[in-house]
Amino acid sequence: MARIKLSELNRLDSGGFTAALDNVFEYSPWIAEQAAGGRPFNGVGQLFAAMKAVVEALTAERQRELIGVHPDLANKPQQAAGLTTESKAEQGSAGLGHLTVAEAEALTRLNADYRAKFGFPYIVCARRHTRDSILRDCTRRLQNDEATEARRAIDEICRIAALRLDQLVEADDRLPVTGRLSTHVLDSHGGKPAAGIPVELVELAELGESRLIARTVTNDDGRTEAPLIGGRPLPIGRYELTFRMGPYFASRGVPLSEPPFLDVIPIRFAISEPEAHYHVPLLVTPWSYSTYRGS
Amino acid sequence: MARIKLSELNRLDSGGFTAALDNVFEYSPWIAEQAAGGRPFNGVGQLFAAMKAVVEALTAERQRELIGVHPDLANKPQQAAGLTTESKAEQGSAGLGHLTVAEAEALTRLNADYRAKFGFPYIVCARRHTRDSILRDCTRRLQNDEATEARRAIDEICRIAALRLDQLVEADDRLPVTGRLSTHVLDSHGGKPAAGIPVELVELAELGESRLIARTVTNDDGRTEAPLIGGRPLPIGRYELTFRMGPYFASRGVPLSEPPFLDVIPIRFAISEPEAHYHVPLLVTPWSYSTYRGS
Amino acid sequence: MARIKLSELNRLDSGGFTAALDNVFEYSPWIAEQAAGGRPFNGVGQLFAAMKAVVEALTAERQRELIGVHPDLANKPQQAAGLTTESKAEQGSAGLGHLTVAEAEALTRLNADYRAKFGFPYIVCARRHTRDSILRDCTRRLQNDEATEARRAIDEICRIAALRLDQLVEADDRLPVTGRLSTHVLDSHGGKPAAGIPVELVELAELGESRLIARTVTNDDGRTEAPLIGGRPLPIGRYELTFRMGPYFASRGVPLSEPPFLDVIPIRFAISEPEAHYHVPLLVTPWSYSTYRGS
Amino acid sequence: MARIKLSELNRLDSGGFTAALDNVFEYSPWIAEQAAGGRPFNGVGQLFAAMKAVVEALTAERQRELIGVHPDLANKPQQAAGLTTESKAEQGSAGLGHLTVAEAEALTRLNADYRAKFGFPYIVCARRHTRDSILRDCTRRLQNDEATEARRAIDEICRIAALRLDQLVEADDRLPVTGRLSTHVLDSHGGKPAAGIPVELVELAELGESRLIARTVTNDDGRTEAPLIGGRPLPIGRYELTFRMGPYFASRGVPLSEPPFLDVIPIRFAISEPEAHYHVPLLVTPWSYSTYRGS
Repeated sequence: MARIKLSELNRLDSGGFTAALDNVFEYSPWIAEQAAGGRPFNGVGQLFAAMKAVVEALTAERQRELIGVHPDLANKPQQAAGLTTESKAEQGSAGLGHLTVAEAEALTRLNADYRAKFGFPYIVCARRHTRDSILRDCTRRLQNDEATEARRAIDEICRIAALRLDQLVEADDRLPVTGRLSTHVLDSHGGKPAAGIPVELVELAELGESRLIARTVTNDDGRTEAPLIGGRPLPIGRYELTFRMGPYFASRGVPLSEPPFLDVIPIRFAISEPEAHYHVPLLVTPWSYSTYRGS
Repeated sequence: MARIKLSELNRLDSGGFTAALDNVFEYSPWIAEQAAGGRPFNGVGQLFAAMKAVVEALTAERQRELIGVHPDLANKPQQAAGLTTESKAEQGSAGLGHLTVAEAEALTRLNADYRAKFGFPYIVCARRHTRDSILRDCTRRLQNDEATEARRAIDEICRIAALRLDQLVEADDRLPVTGRLSTHVLDSHGGKPAAGIPVELVELAELGESRLIARTVTNDDGRTEAPLIGGRPLPIGRYELTFRMGPYFASRGVPLSEPPFLDVIPIRFAISEPEAHYHVPLLVTPWSYSTYRGS
Repeated sequence: MARIKLSELNRLDSGGFTAALDNVFEYSPWIAEQAAGGRPFNGVGQLFAAMKAVVEALTAERQRELIGVHPDLANKPQQAAGLTTESKAEQGSAGLGHLTVAEAEALTRLNADYRAKFGFPYIVCARRHTRDSILRDCTRRLQNDEATEARRAIDEICRIAALRLDQLVEADDRLPVTGRLSTHVLDSHGGKPAAGIPVELVELAELGESRLIARTVTNDDGRTEAPLIGGRPLPIGRYELTFRMGPYFASRGVPLSEPPFLDVIPIRFAISEPEAHYHVPLLVTPWSYSTYRGS
Repeated sequence: MARIKLSELNRLDSGGFTAALDNVFEYSPWIAEQAAGGRPFNGVGQLFAAMKAVVEALTAERQRELIGVHPDLANKPQQAAGLTTESKAEQGSAGLGHLTVAEAEALTRLNADYRAKFGFPYIVCARRHTRDSILRDCTRRLQNDEATEARRAIDEICRIAALRLDQLVEADDRLPVTGRLSTHVLDSHGGKPAAGIPVELVELAELGESRLIARTVTNDDGRTEAPLIGGRPLPIGRYELTFRMGPYFASRGVPLSEPPFLDVIPIRFAISEPEAHYHVPLLVTPWSYSTYRGS
């Protein structure tokens, strides 16, 4: 999707501006319309702040109405009736399009319980989550009282909007909505970066199937050319990184046992801060390794 | 099974001695009979050496006959017809009693190819192997020439005999036929051993299903009361050790992210020396860990 | 010095018992005399408890008298006049016999300040300390009030007595008065213990000169035959362990830079628990190493 | 010293060009003069190649003359008589201006032996060395034959020239004559970079005194604002990095022993590749640490 320049947004008439940003807040173009008067914006940060201010200024009753126009997560009839394109993509990024039966049942039940308790749909910024963490998040939030959840729903709506805006608008500044997951393989046997190591990143799931997220190979500096996850929030959840070390040491003439003591090395870890930088390196010899949350 | 004292073996008449050791070499009580004259033995090491000397002194033709009386591995009709008790237990220890279809087919085909090429059965000391390593071993040995394999079959027969003798005879010395796998969890966040950590050891299999080998908990010194594997050879193969660290750090009031960065930590490694000591420790904080082949 | 058996102590007449233990409490044979009635003792633990009970039962006034018979630490005139043999050995173990001018001046001043403030000598169980930690301990204790220090002096007197008793009496049990410092060098490049590594332990001193405490070489298991410190309390203080790794890797044909990236590896650490086990291992390759407080 | 732009060098007349580069090769402006015809140069790399080509094209006899105009290292009378400014600065960078008596004697003797054996002065690119490595280098090179050393002298002369050119000329490209030493302190107890850690880098010397090279503090990312050494060759030699960790952990409320198990952590390592990047990080908890040659 072609992004629109902030300078262009600043130049459009009010109708054009509203049309360009109509779905930043789900089914609520009037938010963009009310923010239009704040132009010109000197950055996407300022634009987002203006739109968020419109939401924050609403009465509690109007905020409930805004919450009420959002769809249920992974609701089959609603999906048949048509989610917005944005909603569909967001739910897809969290793997909600490919739930197992157990996951789908759990999510449907949680959504129903939530709506029954609070009178409005469970809203979460799906791009910041995996299937597992959505199930956990909804379970936990069911314990809250209504005021807390109404507040939380508005926060999530603003997070969704910030991500949509980040993808839609091109400006000199960026909204702080993306994280980065990187790795580095250091061969402590040879005292240098380990090049050519096959690396895989898998998202683990308690009720469903693991999903391959990235498959790549380390370069001459022992790093991957692109971050394992980058340019988007890191979905909260549990992951397994694997590094295939056996062929690397074998090809360098290192004396190894048969089978080699270490071959495929798995590192299982969790992400809890979607907007952070996670660096998960591997220091490795044929007989030892270590890993840590780096920076 | 009650073990017999070496001193008693030394006192028995030749018939009693032979009867006591009749199946140390499969279906070949005459080996014990011929070794009986060497008594009294000052240790089980000397007893084994005497029996092995009988085998080594055979002509090539007689060695082939000895090889020929051994059963095929995991051969269903032979098993129906009756393996010796010892053979059945040995094959069971390697998991040959619970092969998947794919594993059974692979093994049957390899055994047939082996017998077709060399004219005698593929013999391996099953207690020193996992399913995976038997499949790999047979595949590799199919590349050898006949003289090499005849020699290798005799070696494996002697390894089987040594293990049977070790289980049968009680003496002051021990045959060097057992290995040990141990672990140790050290909490580098608190600077002390990590007690109460659930530990699992699983045997990995390429064609079949993983098998749980040990499940235990660390004691106050961060070690397990008994070795993860001990008192027997360490089966050559690939393993995964897992340590559940999350509840440990949580219960000590350590500030953790949610989900915790590290929770279940897997260490995947291979054993290649059945009679060695493998020490595979874990040094761990909530944000880092390392492991190595220790001593 | 020949140790005396507890069974013999139990058999002696009261005078013999008292004579045997006359200096367990400095210049105070009457403590042994009063404890003699508790015989027979079933262990050295029980014997020590009985002697300590005599001290604890004293009035505050009598405890001050007991404190008062103790010598000043490192007091030259008193030393000329004659310390007990035990006192001399204890002060020597802490290096008090070889103070630099700066250290001696600091200690003399602190002792004088202490006596001036509290009216009795500064007492410390010297075997549990280095020169540095005695200076720090006295400085800190000068902040206390008199009641605290009278109590503390009695505790230190009992610690001194326990150590003297441990050296004097042979029994089936031991008093928990000794610690142990051990190391282990693991070659993570070769995946095995590093044998033949020269190891040195030096006591660091802020005002004085470092003192060599142990110099040894690792054995085939990468450990030292004897603990670096053992069979006595570990003196509280700061230490530096050094491991000379360069020749080890060079002699094994490992490709090294010139000079090698790592050669002599220093580990600086402090001991704070004299009766504990400190294990300070080194995991090392030509390009990396790690250490930790182990168990 | 103001640098001169390559574009300006390209525009100057031959005399101006020669004058600007007269001392790139010690006392040998004619080398610049002969290279002037190659202009315009598209980069400093091409310029250096042209000057080097002049040297390489010389007859063996002329090369000996070029070698002969170089001064002895750390020769007092020569220094009184006047070294070029460049020579003085280079020798100073290696600490040759502050030799101990033992170092000065050793160097004088080695230089004399070298000149006696080969008939020309010992030449080394001093900026790539410490005092220790110059003494070792000269000792080693004394073993060579004359042809080897004549060749080596020319190589060192070219290295000296490259460094002078790099400092003198500003261009879009850079000569590959500089290295970088960096560090990073990661707090594996808290799972984040360790900020505010005092770091010192000291050059170790066998015969002389250690020299403080850098003293700094880590920033919020656990790194130092500037490399510990950068923008110049890393002098071959042995170093000690120290990190003062005690106050850091104490100030964060981490329960510590007294004295803390780890306080000042020394890492002793050697540099052997002056033009490389050495990354020497510290991963640390109050009870453990590790380091490695990173990238």
